[in-house]
Amino acid sequence: MKRFCAIVEYDGTKFFGFQRQRAGTRTVQGLLEEALHRIVKNHVTVLASGRTDSGVHATGQVIAFDVAWPHEVDALLTAINVNLPADIAVKQLSEVEGSFHPRFDAKRRTYKYYIEICDDFNVRRPLTRHRHWQLFEDLNLEAMNAAASHLIGMHDFATFGQPPKGDNTIREVYQAEWQREGDLLIFVVEANAFLYRMVRSIVGTLKVVGEGKWTVAEFTAAFHACDRHRAAITAPAHGLYLVFVTY
Amino acid sequence: MKRFCAIVEYDGTKFFGFQRQRAGTRTVQGLLEEALHRIVKNHVTVLASGRTDSGVHATGQVIAFDVAWPHEVDALLTAINVNLPADIAVKQLSEVEGSFHPRFDAKRRTYKYYIEICDDFNVRRPLTRHRHWQLFEDLNLEAMNAAASHLIGMHDFATFGQPPKGDNTIREVYQAEWQREGDLLIFVVEANAFLYRMVRSIVGTLKVVGEGKWTVAEFTAAFHACDRHRAAITAPAHGLYLVFVTY
Repeated sequence: MKRFCAIVEYDGTKFFGFQRQRAGTRTVQGLLEEALHRIVKNHVTVLASGRTDSGVHATGQVIAFDVAWPHEVDALLTAINVNLPADIAVKQLSEVEGSFHPRFDAKRRTYKYYIEICDDFNVRRPLTRHRHWQLFEDLNLEAMNAAASHLIGMHDFATFGQPPKGDNTIREVYQAEWQREGDLLIFVVEANAFLYRMVRSIVGTLKVVGEGKWTVAEFTAAFHACDRHRAAITAPAHGLYLVFVTY
Repeated sequence: MKRFCAIVEYDGTKFFGFQRQRAGTRTVQGLLEEALHRIVKNHVTVLASGRTDSGVHATGQVIAFDVAWPHEVDALLTAINVNLPADIAVKQLSEVEGSFHPRFDAKRRTYKYYIEICDDFNVRRPLTRHRHWQLFEDLNLEAMNAAASHLIGMHDFATFGQPPKGDNTIREVYQAEWQREGDLLIFVVEANAFLYRMVRSIVGTLKVVGEGKWTVAEFTAAFHACDRHRAAITAPAHGLYLVFVTY
């Protein structure tokens, strides 16, 4: 058996998230394991850097799995892609140490969140409806960045999410910044790890700051209260992308 | 009755083209007429600048229809959008002269075609699979533009398409040029009108020039032969967008 590591891109629209569920529920892990099963005729367990929710996309999800594969690595990459539906693709594949674990060995994860300002005619845009959170009024990016800067560092993020297990809600954020590109507001956030729903909860709460409904001080007060009920709203899944995992 | 003109955006992926077909076939015209029927309780015929094929997108399709509407124009715009599915939206609506016809009065149509070069890992990209024609090797844009420049002017385009009716295959092309934006090759083509499949047939044949399989001279020879069998290939529908109609 050899351990392989792969970078995976997927369009989250038609998946019930990354994690395998009961038979008949369409998940990224389930389809990757089915593809590998068809190739090596054995059950293969796919490990990942982390789970993504239903509707969340990835351009840089990292997975690992063990298979007996006597041929070239590129032939396995091609075989996997041939066995995957059009909304998942394995972009890179390489053999790694048998001890490599995509979740435990990950040092940092980077997510991007896309907001699209459709203020020209205040009408939703069909072509990007599964890619960006479409809003009809512009947001104050300066205020959002002033609030976001408070997230940087090691903090208790209990306001913005639950841990996948246990009760440790301390995380370290290295980068949290909005940039404007045309009609798009793009939030880049990098942390050692994230709580469940953390990025979407931060984005939703920053949006309320951007609308002027909350001040930066109200944002930081909610953040430091470490109380899940103090978050404003949760941004929709379809604007969120897992873009990079650092090892 | 008042005549209204509207600009419509749609994601062509799940439509069997623009034109209404038998009941049960999902078309843009069919859904626009159903939305208007629900609002005014009468059958309303929707006219358009032209038909788009199954899978072709639009950001600037122009339509017109007659309804008795005693309220504000903006209220009709909202009512239509509420009654449309997420993959169509009416972006602008205004009252026009009763004699206005979106097809007969159109002077020029502009289409864009998007090719995406996925040459980094030679793997398809799930997130843009319904938006761009994904290719795995770069194309020679200079050669494609040298060939495309021959399209400009009034010519017989019989090599690249059939007329919707009759046998006039003469059209006048004002603009036909490729531009590179990152991984994207974007073809902008503007003409007084287009034959059926004309843009896709031109793009497919220019692609063969870009691959170096045809010379520019072979392209122009095929073009001037005015023979539909001389076109190389037809590019897929999902890279094509109707972006603008000039009146």
